[in-house]
Amino acid sequence: MQEPLYLDDFKVGQRFESATHALDAAQIKRFAAEFDPQPFHLDEAAAENSLFGGLAASGWHVASLTMRLLVDGTIPIGSGNIGAGVDITWPKPTRPGDVLQVFSEVTEVRPSRSKPDRGIVTIRSETRNQHGDVLQVLTSRMLVLRKAE
Amino acid sequence: MQEPLYLDDFKVGQRFESATHALDAAQIKRFAAEFDPQPFHLDEAAAENSLFGGLAASGWHVASLTMRLLVDGTIPIGSGNIGAGVDITWPKPTRPGDVLQVFSEVTEVRPSRSKPDRGIVTIRSETRNQHGDVLQVLTSRMLVLRKAE
Repeated sequence: MQEPLYLDDFKVGQRFESATHALDAAQIKRFAAEFDPQPFHLDEAAAENSLFGGLAASGWHVASLTMRLLVDGTIPIGSGNIGAGVDITWPKPTRPGDVLQVFSEVTEVRPSRSKPDRGIVTIRSETRNQHGDVLQVLTSRMLVLRKAE
Repeated sequence: MQEPLYLDDFKVGQRFESATHALDAAQIKRFAAEFDPQPFHLDEAAAENSLFGGLAASGWHVASLTMRLLVDGTIPIGSGNIGAGVDITWPKPTRPGDVLQVFSEVTEVRPSRSKPDRGIVTIRSETRNQHGDVLQVLTSRMLVLRKAE
């Protein structure tokens, strides 16, 4: 068990590294069938003729897998991993066979002015594959509580 | 079947409205178990004592359901619904019993300078429940092709 983190434990420049998740075509198609049923996420042949040039995971699947990797002990926030807002870009497609890993860095720690028991911690998380390609950049403004006295 | 939309079909101020999706506790817990296994997304009793004050859907679940509603004919982009990047905020928790519907508006249409066959269409999508509460605001920069001559 890792020690839970509270607002005062976060510092700009602090880094976190997740476990890995191996993605395959079956997972990509299953997520897409439920949430993003477009040909380039569902079918190899159709994907060849799309802007992706081959089967690619839904960006929402990459985001959801990134969340799973973050929640599984990467950043053990005592009050939970609760996002107030996020920005996401997907610089490259995520493919079958990619092994995902998340590399996070704290970029800002801002105590709330109106609510002294909490603050916003901004965390920039790159989701990379086993070749080091950056597949997603997620900037999250996390709501983090101070440790109760 | 709706006519597919290409870059020149998009205008600032154009609006789109999705179908609806009824969310229940079982769906919330199933998504959370796979992608965001935190107590306030998995268990009513634990959620009562959290910042959410009751069971709430993962923000990634809300985002993924929003994508499904958009893809299901709401905005029939000819080249596919492909996001280059997004910003998301979640102003209120999404609860069991919420019936989700997406209301979208085009806020910018910007042809590419370097690639004349495409452009970026920015779309602001509010995901609301049946009471009109705004649960999520998604601003998407969509890659959209011109119609082939």
